[in-house]
Amino acid sequence: MKIIAAKKILKANDQIAENNRRRLSQNGVFTVNMLGSPGAGKTTLLEALLPLLKSRLSAAVIEGDIATSNDAERIEAIGIPSVQLNTDGACHLDANIVGLALDSLDLGNYGMIIVENVGNLICTAGFDLGEHIRVVVLSATEGADKVEKYPAMFQNAHALVINKTDLYPHIDFDPGRVMSDAKRIAPEVRIFQASARSGDGIAVLGEWLLDKRERWLQGIEK
Amino acid sequence: MKIIAAKKILKANDQIAENNRRRLSQNGVFTVNMLGSPGAGKTTLLEALLPLLKSRLSAAVIEGDIATSNDAERIEAIGIPSVQLNTDGACHLDANIVGLALDSLDLGNYGMIIVENVGNLICTAGFDLGEHIRVVVLSATEGADKVEKYPAMFQNAHALVINKTDLYPHIDFDPGRVMSDAKRIAPEVRIFQASARSGDGIAVLGEWLLDKRERWLQGIEK
Repeated sequence: MKIIAAKKILKANDQIAENNRRRLSQNGVFTVNMLGSPGAGKTTLLEALLPLLKSRLSAAVIEGDIATSNDAERIEAIGIPSVQLNTDGACHLDANIVGLALDSLDLGNYGMIIVENVGNLICTAGFDLGEHIRVVVLSATEGADKVEKYPAMFQNAHALVINKTDLYPHIDFDPGRVMSDAKRIAPEVRIFQASARSGDGIAVLGEWLLDKRERWLQGIEK
Repeated sequence: MKIIAAKKILKANDQIAENNRRRLSQNGVFTVNMLGSPGAGKTTLLEALLPLLKSRLSAAVIEGDIATSNDAERIEAIGIPSVQLNTDGACHLDANIVGLALDSLDLGNYGMIIVENVGNLICTAGFDLGEHIRVVVLSATEGADKVEKYPAMFQNAHALVINKTDLYPHIDFDPGRVMSDAKRIAPEVRIFQASARSGDGIAVLGEWLLDKRERWLQGIEK
């Protein structure tokens, strides 16, 4: 019975996610679900990335956290509108709560929305939020075995950002292992190496996102 | 109905956890539930810690992962018996699966068992496994906001290990913030700063664990 209930929840989530995606698409809002472990550097990456995107389109951020509004405050501080979702203990965002965030935004105003999911390398993978693409952020300090150990997170990723490259000289980390594991699980995944702290690789990621959005708008990619 | 089901699962888990704890206590096996994010350095910490414990008592490790037996293999490689539990997608260990691991060990042979939980800063906090103490490992590279953002993980911790101190010179991290946040949420928590990679702080942690076990054996602490 528990399994049936879980399936029902996922099915209901999928229906609401489709509804979110339709609303976003109708408004031309390219939407990114950004996922990763606690401390992978997702918010810091947004702080580095959004100033670059800002000159090219109007962006908003939806922040998912168990507690606090720290992350939304950090995004507001760089002049980007944000909505903070608190899950009250839940380990992932779902399409329903993201739908509530969309209700609070005037979607016609935005060209891109980035949803920063709850810090979790497991639970968030199972929930479609209605996004157009998924970007997984993995910190180099988490170690090179993470794709192999948490495969579900990586198999539906459109992009994988290996973050904190500025720490490469100080840690034992084999980016080649992460890249080959990721390509095996998700052959189409685009892999970036970046440092949100130093800015290294951020412009390349930003251009890729803008290009992805352009191809989506033109109907070249779904 | 969903909420009731969840409560039933937690209640069933608590009963099995009490049973595990009784079995462990009757055999004099002091048991540690080690928790933390993916890549916090839990396995590397065990690789540094267990050789120190080995000369003082006989230890075993139960490894919890979604996939692979990598971690149990690493523990076996340093000569410590280990059991690998694969959760098949579940984001945490529970008392039932840990009970199965206990069935496979001759408990009379061990003075200490360390259970390395699935890498997750959220879900694992809600499940008593039958342990005597909880040790949370937080990597300094995860950032100083983690106690505030994931409070449930820290509030029942007996010890907090801030790991990867060797990277302090290369990151922006305020250990004072973590310590004051942790003390506010869990006033009795013992906080360690350590580097599993350099060995810094590992002996102090090992002595504390041995002392904790001694006091537990003597009935000074539960």
